[in-house]
Amino acid sequence: MEQHVDFITLGVADLAAARRFYVEGLGWKPTFEVDGEVVFIQVGHGLLLALWGAKDMAEDIGAPVTPGSSASFAHNVSSDEAVQGVLDDAERAGGTILKAAQPAFFGGVQGYFEDPEGFRWEVAHNPGWSVDPDGTVHIGPS
Amino acid sequence: MEQHVDFITLGVADLAAARRFYVEGLGWKPTFEVDGEVVFIQVGHGLLLALWGAKDMAEDIGAPVTPGSSASFAHNVSSDEAVQGVLDDAERAGGTILKAAQPAFFGGVQGYFEDPEGFRWEVAHNPGWSVDPDGTVHIGPS
Repeated sequence: MEQHVDFITLGVADLAAARRFYVEGLGWKPTFEVDGEVVFIQVGHGLLLALWGAKDMAEDIGAPVTPGSSASFAHNVSSDEAVQGVLDDAERAGGTILKAAQPAFFGGVQGYFEDPEGFRWEVAHNPGWSVDPDGTVHIGPS
Repeated sequence: MEQHVDFITLGVADLAAARRFYVEGLGWKPTFEVDGEVVFIQVGHGLLLALWGAKDMAEDIGAPVTPGSSASFAHNVSSDEAVQGVLDDAERAGGTILKAAQPAFFGGVQGYFEDPEGFRWEVAHNPGWSVDPDGTVHIGPS
């Protein structure tokens, strides 16, 4: 198995509400969608975020889709000052701030919010993280 | 909030077991790790997968990390025939096959496995999906 992720799919109880948050609230542009079924949003080089009804997902997998908060997604910004502004954007869009912007243990600034389905996003300025033009990521003590 | 994801972080109950699956089992190469604390693995252009202890994650967020299976990650391959081979790789590495390779509703072949913590991966050949050299993703009826 090669080392790549191509889609992040969120199994959601209320697709319309999830769409409102990401598309209308945050202003993210869908790449493709099927009304009432699925919304695909590009969130990186070759990377799609998919919003998909939890019932459809469970049927496709053949196993229950159970709500939980055991993963998070990070959205990095380029300055300490930008973190709270993104958290505010998320709150205005209908998200809930879990942790306001504050100094992070890794040396920058971080905060967290939850989307309306409880999926968690960290917003961070991480001075030990960088990405080369070819996509190679560096992380660790700078 | 701009339209990008930079990290996918899995909050795991047993970091050593999660590391065994991804690093020793699947052969994925860590970008950086702190023994017993965190493992970062590059899984795309500018994209890191992080394995992080659920307790540390909960403390950082200031909210409980509760196991659930409400998101999945997709790993796309280039032919129908390659899907089952990747599922077999995952099973040999200690994962559990939830759905063997079979025709997918979207027109290709797909299957699913769970890692030892219950995080779900779809393995698929999706003929309606493609990525341009600049990273732009296309998806939809081909």
